[in-house]
Amino acid sequence: MSAAEQGRRQLHLNLFMLSTGHHEASWRHRDASPQLAADFRYYKRMAQLAEQAKMDSIFIAEKYRLNKMTKYRVIPQLEAFTMQAALAAVTEKIGLTATASTTYNEPYHIARKFASLDHISGGRAAWNIVTSTGDATARNFGKERHLDHSLRYERAHEFVEAAVRLWTGWAEDALLIDQEAGLYADMSRIKAADYEGKHLSVAGPLNLPRSPQAVPVLVQAGSSEDGRSFAARWAELVFTAQPSIESAIAFYADLKGRLKAWGRNKEQLKILPGLIPFIGDSEAEAKEKERELNELSVSDYGLYNLSALLQTDLSDCPLDGPLPYERLPAPEQVQGQQARFQLYVNLAREEKLSIRELIIRTAGGRGHFTVAGTPIQIADTMQRWLEAGAADGFNLMPPLLPSGLDDFVSKVVPELQNRGIYRTEYSGNTLREHLGLTGMSAPQPV
Amino acid sequence: MSAAEQGRRQLHLNLFMLSTGHHEASWRHRDASPQLAADFRYYKRMAQLAEQAKMDSIFIAEKYRLNKMTKYRVIPQLEAFTMQAALAAVTEKIGLTATASTTYNEPYHIARKFASLDHISGGRAAWNIVTSTGDATARNFGKERHLDHSLRYERAHEFVEAAVRLWTGWAEDALLIDQEAGLYADMSRIKAADYEGKHLSVAGPLNLPRSPQAVPVLVQAGSSEDGRSFAARWAELVFTAQPSIESAIAFYADLKGRLKAWGRNKEQLKILPGLIPFIGDSEAEAKEKERELNELSVSDYGLYNLSALLQTDLSDCPLDGPLPYERLPAPEQVQGQQARFQLYVNLAREEKLSIRELIIRTAGGRGHFTVAGTPIQIADTMQRWLEAGAADGFNLMPPLLPSGLDDFVSKVVPELQNRGIYRTEYSGNTLREHLGLTGMSAPQPV
Ligand SMILES: Cc1cc2nc3c(=O)[nH]c(=O)nc-3n(C[C@H](O)[C@H](O)[C@H](O)COP(=O)(O)O)c2cc1C
Ligand SMILES: Cc1cc2nc3c(=O)[nH]c(=O)nc-3n(C[C@H](O)[C@H](O)[C@H](O)COP(=O)(O)O)c2cc1C
Repeated sequence: MSAAEQGRRQLHLNLFMLSTGHHEASWRHRDASPQLAADFRYYKRMAQLAEQAKMDSIFIAEKYRLNKMTKYRVIPQLEAFTMQAALAAVTEKIGLTATASTTYNEPYHIARKFASLDHISGGRAAWNIVTSTGDATARNFGKERHLDHSLRYERAHEFVEAAVRLWTGWAEDALLIDQEAGLYADMSRIKAADYEGKHLSVAGPLNLPRSPQAVPVLVQAGSSEDGRSFAARWAELVFTAQPSIESAIAFYADLKGRLKAWGRNKEQLKILPGLIPFIGDSEAEAKEKERELNELSVSDYGLYNLSALLQTDLSDCPLDGPLPYERLPAPEQVQGQQARFQLYVNLAREEKLSIRELIIRTAGGRGHFTVAGTPIQIADTMQRWLEAGAADGFNLMPPLLPSGLDDFVSKVVPELQNRGIYRTEYSGNTLREHLGLTGMSAPQPV
Repeated sequence: MSAAEQGRRQLHLNLFMLSTGHHEASWRHRDASPQLAADFRYYKRMAQLAEQAKMDSIFIAEKYRLNKMTKYRVIPQLEAFTMQAALAAVTEKIGLTATASTTYNEPYHIARKFASLDHISGGRAAWNIVTSTGDATARNFGKERHLDHSLRYERAHEFVEAAVRLWTGWAEDALLIDQEAGLYADMSRIKAADYEGKHLSVAGPLNLPRSPQAVPVLVQAGSSEDGRSFAARWAELVFTAQPSIESAIAFYADLKGRLKAWGRNKEQLKILPGLIPFIGDSEAEAKEKERELNELSVSDYGLYNLSALLQTDLSDCPLDGPLPYERLPAPEQVQGQQARFQLYVNLAREEKLSIRELIIRTAGGRGHFTVAGTPIQIADTMQRWLEAGAADGFNLMPPLLPSGLDDFVSKVVPELQNRGIYRTEYSGNTLREHLGLTGMSAPQPV
């Protein structure tokens, strides 16, 4: 730890690595390389840069269905776990978080794969636990309907408990490796999982000795009541979409407050809200970057999106004219996103926006906090969130990749380091060490 | 192709990478490193060496249960797919074959993961298709009993057909990537799988553009009637355990003869029998290496194994005394491996072997062809098999690793190259190119 870091609360940084970036129109930007979206070298370079910047971890999302928007935009492509396993071989220190669903997997596979990743990476594996959404996903696994929300979380609890039992089944001293006597393992130090739940069961033991972290860091991003109580029990790292510092403070207090009921303390779970930074040498330049990306959203895609939300075909409307208010359904007739429907219609009406302007205004961060400013302004914001109890760090979601990462690393990271709120060197080797979770036990079955 | 290679049949070589080696006692050898069995760097070095030797591919086996023998010997540890994904990042040319079971997986996951591996490796992915064995595996997936043999293969056929449909669903020209117009993909060039079978169904499409090989090379090692007819339909690479050149010729003729029924020609499937070479500068030195490893089998493990096979507890018998013939069951009472029971008892009786001698004599290759000799003798054997129509190459299974691989690469490979029956350079980039399978279409659903 440097002198500046002494005694100061430290930011944790995760890079959410997503093809051409987090802005929906990023792939259309002249600096984007959408033709590299399935090219490993493209991601390898970004991962190594994040590691040079001493970030805690890299996160990769994962869905088990083709995105409806594939006509209009590049969608995350390479499978998350495969990519993290490959990145493990070309990085040394940075944590590797892969997403996998408890609804469409088996604990034995997940336990074996993540334990293998933890061995290969020397203790850098993390699992983002999701329950998936939608019947389209279900149909890719021989089911007609997706499991109900509460049943999904019921299964998720069972799943993680079973996996933790598998991971912790091998004692640290289970391996004898006595070549002389011909004895490899002490079988009394290898316990079966013997888990029997309502949704799943698994016998065990796992066919793999205990890995460096034993249990990969457990990550979660659920926001519903069920999701939060799941996080309170199991998660050590939480991603969340928070539109403002106020909402982030409330979420932070709520989630940390839930830990005690599980015998856990507030340091055992780190909360990283999403951050979408537009970085410029002046504030005006940053805002110009944002505007430029938003404008690229005006295309078939933006119209398609808006048509879907408003449940009205807008393809024959002039882009520079108003919404066809007379053809819109009444709010109470809207299926699905009623609140968002109202918000958009009111915004357009009150500010007299054209369709083009409405698309531009709403193209942004999908609910994640967006900031456009100089490196100093962005560091100010991050520090404010850290000190106000809104965040333990951030899930960095550059709107445009790789340039948004390059800028963040070369301009914002040094500023955070100068302030003593972000590491200049890794002090440990495992992800749990980077996150300051060592000394505390990993989640245990109860 | 070098001058020597012109017009000669070429050997294909696959390295079966297995912890400390294929001899059951290898881990006890002074040159073994059993403490590195879960260390990625150990495998990385071997993989890179196999690539320097221009081998076609590296194979990793996979089971979903703890081996009963874990007390006595190091067992394959890191999950096969995870390892191959990591190796993809640190190799350039060599094919990467990971094992996964059709009995305990879902086609969507397998398709997505192997397509990702194929992208990451630039067209080097292969899938060893297995159906798994035993109720102990079933219990790790919430089932009481393993699926019956014929049902397993029924499911396997459906599984591969569904996966192939997912892989081939994206046309080569499905990606538009038109940044100007804001159009990423031509949805009319992305087809759903819409597979509905008796055992499984999957809607699709896959959420990943077509990979370099489209379909990973399909590998298989089933030996039963069902296994062979599965291979005839789908496999492009077959591993097999053949104790002699005669049995190998028969197997080769049988399997190649089955291809026509599926509209395939003999070049579309390559057969690689296992080869366990003990390499010495003299034949005597090679035989001494074999004897030394066989002797290391005498331990609790050898006794435990023999006790299980003979269904008689031998732990109180002097190792240098005879079998307790009076306590052995009658052959017809033996459950399980009756033929092997008779073979062992007859061998011991006829040659008046002590228990120690019997263990040593039977410790070897698990049915794979074993040869002990000089590099010239081993190359002679390989060439003979190739030219006699017993093999298209070999699945190299060094008895002791890594030294057995080092010796093979430095001593046998140059000899094969001098004879013009093995490449000195890769001529292509993908595994299908290495195997001479290009120009032919990958397996297709019928
Ligand atoms: C930063 C972030 C990343 C997420 N990544 C994924 C993902 O990769 N796959 C997925 O199915 N869901 C993902 N989600 C969705 C959450 O797991 C969760 O389902 C969602 O926030 C709704 O909460 P709920 O499950 O409690 O209803 C992500 C959410 C956030 C905020
Ligand atoms: C070289 C070789 C490697 C094999 N690797 C595996 C493996 O990794 N996992 C597995 O479950 N079975 C493996 N098997 C077993 C075969 O897939 C097959 O089940 C076995 O040969 C019995 O044939 P059958 O399935 O037709 O009855 C392997 C067999 C051979 C010869």
